[in-house]
Amino acid sequence: MAGSPFFERVALIGIGLIGSSLVRVMRRDGLAGHIAVCARKPETLAKALELGLADSTTDDPLAAVEGADLVVLATPIGAYGAIAEIIGPGLKPGAIITDVGSTKGSVIRDVAPHLPEGVHFVPAHPIAGTEKSGPEAGFDSLFEGRWCILTPPDGTDARAVEAVAALWRCTGSMIEQMDAAHHDQVLAITSHLPHLIAYTIVGTATDLEDDLQNEVIKFSAAGFRDFTRIAASDPVMWRDVFLQNKQAVLDVLARFTEDLTAMQRAIRRGEGETLEKSFTRTRAIRRGIVEAHQAGTFKPAEPDEDKD
Amino acid sequence: MAGSPFFERVALIGIGLIGSSLVRVMRRDGLAGHIAVCARKPETLAKALELGLADSTTDDPLAAVEGADLVVLATPIGAYGAIAEIIGPGLKPGAIITDVGSTKGSVIRDVAPHLPEGVHFVPAHPIAGTEKSGPEAGFDSLFEGRWCILTPPDGTDARAVEAVAALWRCTGSMIEQMDAAHHDQVLAITSHLPHLIAYTIVGTATDLEDDLQNEVIKFSAAGFRDFTRIAASDPVMWRDVFLQNKQAVLDVLARFTEDLTAMQRAIRRGEGETLEKSFTRTRAIRRGIVEAHQAGTFKPAEPDEDKD
Repeated sequence: MAGSPFFERVALIGIGLIGSSLVRVMRRDGLAGHIAVCARKPETLAKALELGLADSTTDDPLAAVEGADLVVLATPIGAYGAIAEIIGPGLKPGAIITDVGSTKGSVIRDVAPHLPEGVHFVPAHPIAGTEKSGPEAGFDSLFEGRWCILTPPDGTDARAVEAVAALWRCTGSMIEQMDAAHHDQVLAITSHLPHLIAYTIVGTATDLEDDLQNEVIKFSAAGFRDFTRIAASDPVMWRDVFLQNKQAVLDVLARFTEDLTAMQRAIRRGEGETLEKSFTRTRAIRRGIVEAHQAGTFKPAEPDEDKD
Repeated sequence: MAGSPFFERVALIGIGLIGSSLVRVMRRDGLAGHIAVCARKPETLAKALELGLADSTTDDPLAAVEGADLVVLATPIGAYGAIAEIIGPGLKPGAIITDVGSTKGSVIRDVAPHLPEGVHFVPAHPIAGTEKSGPEAGFDSLFEGRWCILTPPDGTDARAVEAVAALWRCTGSMIEQMDAAHHDQVLAITSHLPHLIAYTIVGTATDLEDDLQNEVIKFSAAGFRDFTRIAASDPVMWRDVFLQNKQAVLDVLARFTEDLTAMQRAIRRGEGETLEKSFTRTRAIRRGIVEAHQAGTFKPAEPDEDKD
């Protein structure tokens, strides 16, 4: 395994929870000579400067990437296509472009066509987060013990892939490489569907009559309280996830709805045996996850992590 | 507020996570002269003796309640009716009977008809738990800072209600009294539906092809990992909850399904604005819950609690 990477000039497009956490690691470990931060809102740029996360700031993506060895896209994924179109002509030959988005097929579809020859695209997804948003929410241990999945298209320069992997190893992440479509399918069930369901059930509670809603808040039991935490995640980021991973999410949602309808039927018909059998078999998956943790492959779940 | 209650003789029917935690408090605070434990399985009774939670054990509910001042039903709620029928004739005049079940309407329906005149029935639901089961899983701080909801039918003896409230105050619980039907409606959304959904989504993952399932376990992100913990809860207890709170669960499930279908439609049609709006409004409920915590009304959610 190579040592720490070093990038003379890094451009970070978007600086929220994930981007600012990555920059904190770069600062801590001295991985970057100059960090140029691009964001739309002046107050975000001011905050980045104030936190010492930027050497220079701009609201122009093209200006940000000038001379950059490494460009990191860290905005909501719905903006990637437009940004790629703007920065494409300004990318330095040999530059590496990567991202931190939660879907990967759409990112390759939206970004790759705008990149000139000789620029290396290494899409990445650090599976980590909290329900907090913004540059002030980041911290340098966010990625420790978590997976970072790289989905470089076939034929991507191996040294570029290794440079991005080395960067993520510095954050304490474990690295895995896979096909973008497979990534999107796995994440649709482990992350996207759970978030959709959490948003939905909390929305259902929001529509209750006032007095009932107050009692729901007062007596919120653990199941529901977990859901409300997940449903406090960044709305724009998640809007984009569902739009960009549409097919995989709809596929897994269809399976889930089918299964939920079967549960509903069993409850309505009073089929205790069916319910008990269903509730028993799900324990095996939990055991698998607990064992994976104990085997040291995983860091145990943190109570306040949930953007993935 | 009165001091600690004292019961000369307590009969505990069923000794799992909740029952054994309550007995631990009784032991710690010296609230009971003699504790008679009843369970079906000899190994459960042996474990209760070994843990010092029982002064006497029996597999006969009628023998257990003989001479008891306080009878606590702590089996899965589906067994309450049959147990009440057995113990009814043996209950001491003036005895208090209570329970720890997660539904309350069904408990009153199943138990009350079997109780003789002069016996006081005070149904209770401590909103606390973990995904662990069995007498060895209990601990005396399980109920600290949690709600315990009492649903005494109209006309219940006030001293009996106060005795049960005093017992639960000793566990560190906060006490609330409400109508059984209202309880069932509130818990259907805060606890029962979230559990049903968690069981379902983990079941959906269990049905995936093997290789995909392995990856789901390996890369299980926070949303899904929370769900697997909830879906590891006791299958028999939860089977009974859904059978016994059928109508309230089906009602809230219908609302949820409607809302989920609207989300699905928005995703399929690419309606980003609808999604973002939905995801934004759910933050208000989260804020309400966080504020309720900060106001000191609640203990913050524990990462490993989830039977409610």
